[in-house]
Amino acid sequence: MNEIKIFSPATVANVSCGFDVLGFCLDAIGDEMVVRKTKEKGIKITKIEGYDLPFEAEKNVAGVSALALIGHANPDCGFEIEIYKNIKPGSGIGSSSASAAGSVFAINELLGKPYNKTQLTNFAMKGEALASGSEHADNLAPGIFGGFTLVKSTVPLEILELPTPSQLYVTIIHPQIEIKTSEARAILPKEIPLKDAITQWANVGSLVHALHTNDYNLIQRSLQDVIVEPYRKSLIPYFEDVKSSALKIGALGCGISGSGPSIFVLTKGKQKAKDVEEAIKTVYSKTDIEFYTFTSAINTEGIKII
Amino acid sequence: MNEIKIFSPATVANVSCGFDVLGFCLDAIGDEMVVRKTKEKGIKITKIEGYDLPFEAEKNVAGVSALALIGHANPDCGFEIEIYKNIKPGSGIGSSSASAAGSVFAINELLGKPYNKTQLTNFAMKGEALASGSEHADNLAPGIFGGFTLVKSTVPLEILELPTPSQLYVTIIHPQIEIKTSEARAILPKEIPLKDAITQWANVGSLVHALHTNDYNLIQRSLQDVIVEPYRKSLIPYFEDVKSSALKIGALGCGISGSGPSIFVLTKGKQKAKDVEEAIKTVYSKTDIEFYTFTSAINTEGIKII
Repeated sequence: MNEIKIFSPATVANVSCGFDVLGFCLDAIGDEMVVRKTKEKGIKITKIEGYDLPFEAEKNVAGVSALALIGHANPDCGFEIEIYKNIKPGSGIGSSSASAAGSVFAINELLGKPYNKTQLTNFAMKGEALASGSEHADNLAPGIFGGFTLVKSTVPLEILELPTPSQLYVTIIHPQIEIKTSEARAILPKEIPLKDAITQWANVGSLVHALHTNDYNLIQRSLQDVIVEPYRKSLIPYFEDVKSSALKIGALGCGISGSGPSIFVLTKGKQKAKDVEEAIKTVYSKTDIEFYTFTSAINTEGIKII
Repeated sequence: MNEIKIFSPATVANVSCGFDVLGFCLDAIGDEMVVRKTKEKGIKITKIEGYDLPFEAEKNVAGVSALALIGHANPDCGFEIEIYKNIKPGSGIGSSSASAAGSVFAINELLGKPYNKTQLTNFAMKGEALASGSEHADNLAPGIFGGFTLVKSTVPLEILELPTPSQLYVTIIHPQIEIKTSEARAILPKEIPLKDAITQWANVGSLVHALHTNDYNLIQRSLQDVIVEPYRKSLIPYFEDVKSSALKIGALGCGISGSGPSIFVLTKGKQKAKDVEEAIKTVYSKTDIEFYTFTSAINTEGIKII
């Protein structure tokens, strides 16, 4: 196999209580990438469609993660990468992560799969670091593994695959404002009250238990964030209105996707997700902020060959 | 039924990463209580053997929790309670909790079980508050529900029953020093670094996942406490020596039981637990501190009629 085309999905990181550790994978939206072997060694990005991103491999997250992989594998060929970007950079649903993960997934396939998913995540973290300034795996892991993931630790990297209840759907609204990841990080306190931390880890434990037991009501009671959301919600206009409109019609939970500005809503069942989509559209339609929405199943497969 | 005899087991709260929320139940040691109906209304404690504790119901944790229950149930009888205490008060393995839970469990049985386990825990929290100064359920829940429990929240009280891997054993060493719960609380900072809190909730999520998947290696990697143990271990002489001797021979984890001074060690298999018991005995035998040790299976039943 000399050429491969893949779909690298959008992802939601943090998931309310699970700041920096939890994430899940979407299937309604994702980037496509074509990667092919070249005689010339190294990584070349030959095409980028959709959004304006750097072509130099060292300045492109897909390039940086690919370079990390081939730096380790030292193959006797190189690779050229075409990126068909559908996930808007800066939207908060893992745009950089999809690029970083997609290139290493594809190259691994072309090399005959010498690396496992955790190793691929490790390479992709180099690309992710270019975008966010630090090596995070909370978007990468759900993209590479699919479903719900928990990044137990980053050094050493350990990723746990959590079960995904089959009726879980997600609705995303992306208000088209810019929030820099660095700004979203800077707004957080370095120290937090112990009592709030206890509430948070009770909710993390509870959410993991709820995913294992298919308990949608418990998922609902666990999707609380007393640490990060109180700070970051100020960066997203009408966040509280979106949240209350979604919860009012029976959503399981609503929170900031990654560092925003996208907002995610989890629901039980596709129809409820569609109802939520209408409700939150109504909220933003009354504002002068551009936005788009979509509804998706949870993608349990992750990145795939198409 | 006018009289009942029950066994109210010792419990381990916190369980390393799960400060204030996780706990599990032992079966090797526990209090016995006899409770019988009386014509005269109210609660009378008629016998206390084992340790010197107050007979006045309002000053005894078993009495206070029993009063909370009958204050709600308003039965047309009263109850007298005999307490045969085996769990040493102040040992850190839920002595007050066993008394507080035992009396309400027994009275509930004699009344024909009007209350569920969560309601019983709520009544018992009134007794626990007498001992510790605040309403905690992290020792009560494993005693009343059995096995591993997660106190998702105290207001409203919500307790989750986690699965218990069948080969899990625990070894306890109780160095006979006094640590006041208030002192153990005061030593903790009110604020903690966000990055440590993230590590902790990753471990809580990971431990819950490990219990669901019977993954002993993951249990081992999850039993880390970066928040509380670094402070409290200074209150327990030779804690680090006990911990390193237990981990060296393959224990899954070792931490402070509740607010100490007892130390718990979790192992896979009974023989390993016995080996650990010998190893940690050796550590304390070299000191001039009195101590005792015991090994126990995890008690999945909780309080029971005997």
